[in-house]
Amino acid sequence: MPQRNSSSSLSFVHQRKAAVVLLFLLTVSALHAQAPADPLPSWNDGPLKKSIVDFVTHTTTTGDAQFVPPEQRILVSDNDGTLWTEQPLYTEFLFALERVKVMAPQHPEWKTEQPYATVLSGDPKAIGSLTEADLMKIIVVTHAGVTVDQFDQIVSDWIAHAQSPRFHRLYTECIYQPMVELLQYFRANGYKTYIVSGGEVEFMRPWAEKAYGIPPEQVVGTTFKMKLDVQNGAPGLMRLPEIDLVDDGPGKPVGIGKFISRKPTVAFGNSDGDQQMLEWTAAAPGPHLMLLVHHTDAAREAAYDRNSSVGRLDKALDEAIAKHWLVVDMKNDWKVVFPPQ
Amino acid sequence: MPQRNSSSSLSFVHQRKAAVVLLFLLTVSALHAQAPADPLPSWNDGPLKKSIVDFVTHTTTTGDAQFVPPEQRILVSDNDGTLWTEQPLYTEFLFALERVKVMAPQHPEWKTEQPYATVLSGDPKAIGSLTEADLMKIIVVTHAGVTVDQFDQIVSDWIAHAQSPRFHRLYTECIYQPMVELLQYFRANGYKTYIVSGGEVEFMRPWAEKAYGIPPEQVVGTTFKMKLDVQNGAPGLMRLPEIDLVDDGPGKPVGIGKFISRKPTVAFGNSDGDQQMLEWTAAAPGPHLMLLVHHTDAAREAAYDRNSSVGRLDKALDEAIAKHWLVVDMKNDWKVVFPPQ
Repeated sequence: MPQRNSSSSLSFVHQRKAAVVLLFLLTVSALHAQAPADPLPSWNDGPLKKSIVDFVTHTTTTGDAQFVPPEQRILVSDNDGTLWTEQPLYTEFLFALERVKVMAPQHPEWKTEQPYATVLSGDPKAIGSLTEADLMKIIVVTHAGVTVDQFDQIVSDWIAHAQSPRFHRLYTECIYQPMVELLQYFRANGYKTYIVSGGEVEFMRPWAEKAYGIPPEQVVGTTFKMKLDVQNGAPGLMRLPEIDLVDDGPGKPVGIGKFISRKPTVAFGNSDGDQQMLEWTAAAPGPHLMLLVHHTDAAREAAYDRNSSVGRLDKALDEAIAKHWLVVDMKNDWKVVFPPQ
Repeated sequence: MPQRNSSSSLSFVHQRKAAVVLLFLLTVSALHAQAPADPLPSWNDGPLKKSIVDFVTHTTTTGDAQFVPPEQRILVSDNDGTLWTEQPLYTEFLFALERVKVMAPQHPEWKTEQPYATVLSGDPKAIGSLTEADLMKIIVVTHAGVTVDQFDQIVSDWIAHAQSPRFHRLYTECIYQPMVELLQYFRANGYKTYIVSGGEVEFMRPWAEKAYGIPPEQVVGTTFKMKLDVQNGAPGLMRLPEIDLVDDGPGKPVGIGKFISRKPTVAFGNSDGDQQMLEWTAAAPGPHLMLLVHHTDAAREAAYDRNSSVGRLDKALDEAIAKHWLVVDMKNDWKVVFPPQ
């Protein structure tokens, strides 16, 4: 009996200690509740940010009418102009123009052959007036004739040092910090993130994981035909000078169907080239979120839409407004544009 | 002081209780150590099974010289003859022959046009003598002209009831139980499992997850060209009557490079059509495992290799023997072939 008594008093001491600990935990928890960690610190508070957070909350809360099962949480995002800058010109075109110079010694005929002669002239005005057909010809020539492994090395070497002429920083530092946070936020909530870009897939795969956290197998893009090529018993994948899929405009739903198979729940874009991808996402069953990045920030990046030759945003903007898709006003919605250096 | 004493005696009671619990846990743990659950119960014990288990153990043990980081644990597997039966004919061809009959009322010209007239005749001998070119023509016609969603429904409806004429069970019950266990075992050890098949990708995606645990985005196969097709405002992906990639033989490394990007660590196959995929896996840096299913079991399934018209295994078998790849002797290595019904 004395033991039971002392046991009781011991329990009482324990209970008091437990109560103190509980009070401490509740206080800490209350402090946290007052200031929860913001998953999107580079986004200004406002209706747009709230819509995003609400969507993520609803689609990931079991029992919610908007709940999306984890395997269907597919997010597709354009790259140029949506995840990194496309000004003054698509980075891949700038890469291709430099490749022409590097490859020129092996192609003496380019001194007189167009459009290569123009590129080699170094005349910015002439280069600026190259047509889209010229640029595609240059893309094909500079991206083919090597194996996938060789091209991976070429891109990796280039991207490690090449700087944007406009922003004077590495291209991989011309990514949009708020969009990187957005990808992280969706991933932290069980979304599988994919790039679906008009860019050539092997131009993006070498660096997309480090820049955006998107692994190479989740990068969908324009593809070249390839052929197995065995040299001295060592197999390689030779890149042929022929485009297989143009993953842009109406080609984006095709790329999604082919590579991802599942229909997306979330889509990010910035131009008319993303319109069909956003429509494809909107047409899928279940809840969905469509978001357009509108370049409204001439001071920090660039302001362009309906009349731009790069990343033109016209019909897709009309549709976004009519259908209440989310339109990011870069100037007002983003605290910063690029990551700190 | 009395309190301290009684507190000590209380501690002593707790310690004794803890010791009993610990002893119990150690006993349970020892029992488990004596008889660990066999991850491959349908495989007979022997050097082949040991090689597989050793490979998985080494590649997943931190600090082991053979350790493979999780993101590089990529497993690719052929389907026909490797994961399910391909006898008496590839299941997809049987599906296509039935589709000709279903589609015939919309194609009165097929009554006289070859190879359709032969299929519609129902004469098994004439059908058996169709050439590969005939069969490919039939595949293209029966797989195109509908959207991906429509084709998904057609395949799902067919696979839900169609039975193998040889084994008198659903085709999805003609899968190899030991290979299903093998996929599960590798997945449980952090391997990402992919199908890389000569079969058409949309013929496999509707049922591969249920049958093998492989989700649609991890199914790589022969692909048709597609086009975005908008009907009454509803977008669909129309399947065009043109093959895009033949994911067989030298096309398999191309399919892997295009869809998976990463180089595989493990490859399963059963025929010469898998030879380049196995070589591609063997040529990748780091540890790798190549495995061929050799059909040696006439009683339970089928015995065939060098002279078979379906799933011919000749050069790949020579290479497997010369290079000490694992060769499964179906008759002696497998306790069962198909799952229990």
